[in-house]
Amino acid sequence: MADRRQLIPMEREDAIRLLASVSLGRIVFTSQALPAIRPVNHLVDDGDLIVRTHIGAAITSAVTPTTPGVVVAYEADQIDPDSRLGWSVVVTGVATAVTDPDEIARFEGRLEPWIDQPMDQVVRIVPDLVTGYRLTNGTEPAEDM
Amino acid sequence: MADRRQLIPMEREDAIRLLASVSLGRIVFTSQALPAIRPVNHLVDDGDLIVRTHIGAAITSAVTPTTPGVVVAYEADQIDPDSRLGWSVVVTGVATAVTDPDEIARFEGRLEPWIDQPMDQVVRIVPDLVTGYRLTNGTEPAEDM
Repeated sequence: MADRRQLIPMEREDAIRLLASVSLGRIVFTSQALPAIRPVNHLVDDGDLIVRTHIGAAITSAVTPTTPGVVVAYEADQIDPDSRLGWSVVVTGVATAVTDPDEIARFEGRLEPWIDQPMDQVVRIVPDLVTGYRLTNGTEPAEDM
Repeated sequence: MADRRQLIPMEREDAIRLLASVSLGRIVFTSQALPAIRPVNHLVDDGDLIVRTHIGAAITSAVTPTTPGVVVAYEADQIDPDSRLGWSVVVTGVATAVTDPDEIARFEGRLEPWIDQPMDQVVRIVPDLVTGYRLTNGTEPAEDM
């Protein structure tokens, strides 16, 4: 079969499974009316995304125990820079601060800090919209990319 | 020196240079009042970022020859998922559609399509805010990460 590049949408459960298979993603939010993005580590907990916001306080200032959640997007991908084949998943949902000390301790144990400074916050993102696609070239099976 | 993880900010020119050293990044924008993100290929042209929007029409609908530009963010990184060392660069600026046919042809020749479908649009992002940092552990030189 000739090289025929295609974008193949995936089911929600496949998208969440792929998200859970990697640890690095990017959280997207609005900071001072501007689009903002930070790479972070994540884990999937019972279908929700859990991140620790080590880089910058922009998210922290938006999501606090006393303010309602904010809508964020979260993206992870594995795309080969040369072949440009792979997958990308984007989750959109409400981010809220995790405030239960036991939960915080449990997640902090599973999400290693990036830098040596006091942790700022554990954030839970409840997926609302989940979209994902595979980039295939029609010649290789896309299942395990 | 002990493993001491640090976030080291970089100069604007270093950030643009690192951005130019890779071809894959993520464009961040607002779509129907929600934060949105798409992985795309980019190149750096005279200090500006040029991307082709192959994935979805969300950017295309926001940036057209007849509407003013929109503010977007663009992020690229090289972060090792295991050691969590590397770098990340975020550019914020106004995105506008490239409309000059000669320019479009020149950029299309340098930005390969991801999938086999008619190209939608070439977009220029003029960097306003440029931030970048290196994640180092204090034991390895950060210069060429």
